[in-house]
Amino acid sequence: MNDYSVIGKRMPRVDSRAKVTGEAKYTADLKFPRMLVGKVLRSPLPHARILHIDTTRARRLPGVKAVVTGEDTTGEKWGVFRYTRDQQFLPTDKVRYLGEEVAAVAAVDEDTALEALELIKVDYEELPAVFDPLEAMAPDAPRIHEDFPQNINIHVAIHVGDVEEGFAKSYYVREDTFRAPEESYFQGEPYAVVARFDLEGNLEIWMPNAGPHMKAKPLSNALKIPLHKVHVRKITIGGAFGGRSEISPADFICALLAQKTRRPVKIVYSREENTIATRQGHAMITTIKTGVDRQGRVIARDVTCFMDGGAYSSTGPIATSVPFLCMEQAYRMENVRYNGYRIYTNKPVRGMIRVHGRAFACGVDTQLDMIAEQLGIDPVEIRLRNAREAGDYTNTRSYVTSCAMKETIRRAAERAGWKEKWGKLPPYRGIGIGCNSVQTGFPMGIRGGSQAFIKFNEDGGATVISGVVDNGQGNDNMLVQIAAEELGLRPEDIQLVTADTEVTPLDPGAYSQVSTFIGGQAVKLAAQDARRKLLEIASEALEAHVDDLVARDRMIFVKGSPQKAIPIKKVVRMGLARGKSVSGEGAYWPKVDPKREWVTNPFGQMCEAFSFGTTIAEVEVDPETGKVKVLQVVAAQDVGFALNPLVLEGQFQGAVAMGGQGGMLTEYHFWDQGRVMNPTQLEYKLPLAPDMPPIETIIVESHDPNGPYGAKEAGMSIAMSAAQAYSAAVSNAIGVYMKEFPITPDKILQALRSKREDKE
Amino acid sequence: MNDYSVIGKRMPRVDSRAKVTGEAKYTADLKFPRMLVGKVLRSPLPHARILHIDTTRARRLPGVKAVVTGEDTTGEKWGVFRYTRDQQFLPTDKVRYLGEEVAAVAAVDEDTALEALELIKVDYEELPAVFDPLEAMAPDAPRIHEDFPQNINIHVAIHVGDVEEGFAKSYYVREDTFRAPEESYFQGEPYAVVARFDLEGNLEIWMPNAGPHMKAKPLSNALKIPLHKVHVRKITIGGAFGGRSEISPADFICALLAQKTRRPVKIVYSREENTIATRQGHAMITTIKTGVDRQGRVIARDVTCFMDGGAYSSTGPIATSVPFLCMEQAYRMENVRYNGYRIYTNKPVRGMIRVHGRAFACGVDTQLDMIAEQLGIDPVEIRLRNAREAGDYTNTRSYVTSCAMKETIRRAAERAGWKEKWGKLPPYRGIGIGCNSVQTGFPMGIRGGSQAFIKFNEDGGATVISGVVDNGQGNDNMLVQIAAEELGLRPEDIQLVTADTEVTPLDPGAYSQVSTFIGGQAVKLAAQDARRKLLEIASEALEAHVDDLVARDRMIFVKGSPQKAIPIKKVVRMGLARGKSVSGEGAYWPKVDPKREWVTNPFGQMCEAFSFGTTIAEVEVDPETGKVKVLQVVAAQDVGFALNPLVLEGQFQGAVAMGGQGGMLTEYHFWDQGRVMNPTQLEYKLPLAPDMPPIETIIVESHDPNGPYGAKEAGMSIAMSAAQAYSAAVSNAIGVYMKEFPITPDKILQALRSKREDKE
Repeated sequence: MNDYSVIGKRMPRVDSRAKVTGEAKYTADLKFPRMLVGKVLRSPLPHARILHIDTTRARRLPGVKAVVTGEDTTGEKWGVFRYTRDQQFLPTDKVRYLGEEVAAVAAVDEDTALEALELIKVDYEELPAVFDPLEAMAPDAPRIHEDFPQNINIHVAIHVGDVEEGFAKSYYVREDTFRAPEESYFQGEPYAVVARFDLEGNLEIWMPNAGPHMKAKPLSNALKIPLHKVHVRKITIGGAFGGRSEISPADFICALLAQKTRRPVKIVYSREENTIATRQGHAMITTIKTGVDRQGRVIARDVTCFMDGGAYSSTGPIATSVPFLCMEQAYRMENVRYNGYRIYTNKPVRGMIRVHGRAFACGVDTQLDMIAEQLGIDPVEIRLRNAREAGDYTNTRSYVTSCAMKETIRRAAERAGWKEKWGKLPPYRGIGIGCNSVQTGFPMGIRGGSQAFIKFNEDGGATVISGVVDNGQGNDNMLVQIAAEELGLRPEDIQLVTADTEVTPLDPGAYSQVSTFIGGQAVKLAAQDARRKLLEIASEALEAHVDDLVARDRMIFVKGSPQKAIPIKKVVRMGLARGKSVSGEGAYWPKVDPKREWVTNPFGQMCEAFSFGTTIAEVEVDPETGKVKVLQVVAAQDVGFALNPLVLEGQFQGAVAMGGQGGMLTEYHFWDQGRVMNPTQLEYKLPLAPDMPPIETIIVESHDPNGPYGAKEAGMSIAMSAAQAYSAAVSNAIGVYMKEFPITPDKILQALRSKREDKE
Repeated sequence: MNDYSVIGKRMPRVDSRAKVTGEAKYTADLKFPRMLVGKVLRSPLPHARILHIDTTRARRLPGVKAVVTGEDTTGEKWGVFRYTRDQQFLPTDKVRYLGEEVAAVAAVDEDTALEALELIKVDYEELPAVFDPLEAMAPDAPRIHEDFPQNINIHVAIHVGDVEEGFAKSYYVREDTFRAPEESYFQGEPYAVVARFDLEGNLEIWMPNAGPHMKAKPLSNALKIPLHKVHVRKITIGGAFGGRSEISPADFICALLAQKTRRPVKIVYSREENTIATRQGHAMITTIKTGVDRQGRVIARDVTCFMDGGAYSSTGPIATSVPFLCMEQAYRMENVRYNGYRIYTNKPVRGMIRVHGRAFACGVDTQLDMIAEQLGIDPVEIRLRNAREAGDYTNTRSYVTSCAMKETIRRAAERAGWKEKWGKLPPYRGIGIGCNSVQTGFPMGIRGGSQAFIKFNEDGGATVISGVVDNGQGNDNMLVQIAAEELGLRPEDIQLVTADTEVTPLDPGAYSQVSTFIGGQAVKLAAQDARRKLLEIASEALEAHVDDLVARDRMIFVKGSPQKAIPIKKVVRMGLARGKSVSGEGAYWPKVDPKREWVTNPFGQMCEAFSFGTTIAEVEVDPETGKVKVLQVVAAQDVGFALNPLVLEGQFQGAVAMGGQGGMLTEYHFWDQGRVMNPTQLEYKLPLAPDMPPIETIIVESHDPNGPYGAKEAGMSIAMSAAQAYSAAVSNAIGVYMKEFPITPDKILQALRSKREDKE
């Protein structure tokens, strides 16, 4: 049992009220005097050479203040990595997907801006396009980027041990191929940017972001203005899910329009634009060959994955690696080989998504179930036999400090009544299990750490200055809880100043589950620094040694003598009266192997902690309609330590919605020659609250030695394991192992039909 | 010779460009969506009981969103000190001066707001009023505040040594009385406030201020909202001169209207309102009795001063003390007695002003000239004989660490050609000298110190986070210079985040000349802290000991081996790559006697440093018109060390304009029964640039051991000594010692007439 006052409690989030009342201001809500409306002209072709852009008529339209094209830029290409610089924010040579930015206008109102777009005349030379990654690799396929033969954008090759020898030694070997198409993020808030310059050339910019510093650096590079003049401001953010981690062409274009017009400019994406012109999740084709011993333990695994990356690199090196890494974290394998290919196609750009790699993870688990059936092993048992344990090294040599994977499996199985149900359910009822693991942060160059300042105010409250961003997951609340805990204050005593590149120090951003582990730790250290100074002042007044003092509930107590106490407010003021202000500073940089690199050297410690999750789903399939009804979901995750169980439960529930209910049953895109036919919520079916099944959440605490209070990532391992569990449960219900996702009614009916035909 | 790179240089101010281009945004320039216009209804009577306020018709006017009166407040009284709580921001019982706030409205536009004011009906019971401080002290005078008999608001009584014994021992004793009326500040920017609340009850507020934290605390108290919810924001400020140091009723009213309407509200004062409803300088009647020995050294001095404080206390205890303190700092006296009375009258509220105490300081110096004449001593010589020196204690027991008063006298006299001119000028030409001293900061309770954070950004630049406010004097530039110097950067590498009570740590505010000494010192310490961390990283790379490294011009060098160097940007990035972010923290609290109090215990160290200034003016008087032409001004000040000579010269010039040219020759108010008849620039004659004489500035550097780089206050001792020099020069020109200020043409003609009559 811990003795914490604030953390570990079911605390309603500090941002709830503002969001519920509508008080919270999102980027699209911002208004400034003389603000212009920015609109983007998009390519109507999936692949074409830009011959000429005539903006004369658009410029002449009254109310139009600026028109920009690639000619207004340096033409430089941008990339997340030095070796992935392939994207112009306003292309000068070619367009590579239908919807790509070609020009933009800033005008006094939306109607004028839209009218101006129609007056821009672009002459294209249409080029042959390719939409399928396998076709794109053919020798005669259209070349999308000159320097990339066969359109291979990224190739990650890993071989640890000897896979061929492993297969030779195996008792049973099988190979299967799994497929999943792209999917969309559908953040609650469509993308929006507001930018304005002052006459000193300082840029103020607001946009949904997964880290203000991640936006500032590329903007500084692209706009050729010093980094310290790029001020990415704090704003409420309506979701990211991996899709707000990079600079967007909209950021650059909006800033460029503001620079040209010397007026504030706002760009708000329509729902259609958010779908096609932010990011999508990668489509994937994964072939998995697995060899096991008699007990079902994996001796060798060989995975080849082709990912449809769309037109540009984005976070390609990461995206190409992560599905493999999640697998090697979750399950032990003696020998493993991985070949991941990210292929350019003439489709929208693909990035990281909360459930990145459905065809990979669901494939691994589906095949494990097939192997288990073959060997007569219970699916739960085969997972326990292969599950990762603390003290292990992963195949790519990351040490696993804490791991309660087996406990999540056991507790989820027990809660779901696995023993009572497996093999005993009535026809068309099924139960399935999935296990997964995700990273708690991985390094992104020198911006991998976080720093925080804390200042005590004269009213006894404290202000936290941190670069951590909250894009919906509750990071603001996390910071408040940690600071209040360490400083002995109540949550309402903590003021946050966060996510502003001018004011707040460096922070890696809220990607890859780092915020609590890295940013939270920096705040914890800063708070401890401030508390030490507070206790030093109090020790005089209380005539007690600093080490014997405790700060709690706005008071400083002498341990063991609770009557000897003094209010923190008084101590702060005593300090001020003596010329001592109470403040603190802290920084946390994760201890990882700096030589590890995604493509060139994928070996060494990649992050400090891993989380592990198991989801079990029980479903009922209607054999007439192919519809799936989810009866129950049990989600168990090793989160290290639950800083706020209420927030974690919300994360678990959202993860089941996104990974399982939506990602595995209803969400997919229709395409026509590179055009998304269902870009809005009307036809891209996101699960709504009434669609959701009952979800039981199990929080498992392994107390990671490196995490703040033992905490590590929370919620993400549920998102993917939910997909795996849903897939397994449907397969179990219909008696067919499904290999293409999502498992929509038509696929179920087709599977049932094939099964019947096979029998006949 | 010093070896500084940035400080000590004639650096154009960082805010110049924004101000010249109009880019700088003042409070009145702020615009927010749905912002309302606030207007204040003011008392048409100087003294009256409020019987009833009927706001019904005003409330009914379409477009009016709120009307507030004293009934919407708690009725509590506010004061700068615990014992001066006498002012309600919206009075419930009485109005005490013509122009006092009675009610206010917020409406959709200015016309509607003004119309609404006319619809508010106030029933007053007019009370007898008193406008003269001596009349106000009469037993039968109207009582303005119930608890203050004889309308004595503040009485400061100091007696050091034995004055009566001193006079008895004196060779020559004389007593004179000097008078000066109120004066106005006429800041370039009239007062304005913008306030808005969010639904969480956080108040954002902008206004010209001499310290955001000085505004936040009383607003928190008055509005009954926690201090940490009051966010006073940074904004460009067009002058303070002592008149923006307190909460204004406008701040409270604007916040109250914003709270009621849940919309942003802006109040912009007219020039008339700025004159009557912000602050004015005190009118003063000073009787000085001085006894000297044969050499003109002061053996005893007894001063009684009556100050017209207007309707409320404001900074009364300070205002009542400061003229005496300036005198005891400037000149030695064996025995001294002071009785300062601040008297309530039915006139606008009086506060501290840059040239507070003309009738006092000019009186002391005029009398010194009279004594010198009597004893046959040169005015320069008598000042040298009485001048303060380093190592002295003042009569009220402040130790004077650095003092170059004598050097300022000698150098000014030499530059002005005193020897060649004194007693040798043609008729109606005159030369005069004045000496003064001011405090470099004095404590204001626990808010007396400053704290700063510094963070290095990944581009090698640094951000300074400090509560220091710039209200026109160049504080922003000062912070940039100090940070750049200490960090080895260029001024353009420094980003400022200042003067915001949410983000920045505590700072006393830019009153009493503290900013460089206290806030600058905090930034210096923070920068040194950051530099130490920088050098530690560099020492590894350069294979040199930290103590052998120097940061300069964006590089870190090994002392003596300039070829061994590394760019600071690289060091910052090396740090980040190793998990070390470079930042710093610093705090400076002045070492003063905490037991010293203005009224109850005016003894002990009051501040850490004093500055000393001498001004010499040469004038020509037209005996026909009484007009004064100023031929030359020489201003010399001991500033400790000149951080930026360019800024100092500007301060000296402004000081001569305000203290001498305006304050001593043209600026005064006409009154009619408590009504200011000349509230605007049309009739209140401020000197303009073409009115100004040639000014020679002499910067004397005494290198104060406590000051940053030896610096202390700069510019203020010129403001008052200029008044003294102007007065002395005119007296010298016309052969009559003037005792009433300002010395307007009518007074000069009257003096010449009396002189002729005396002769006849």
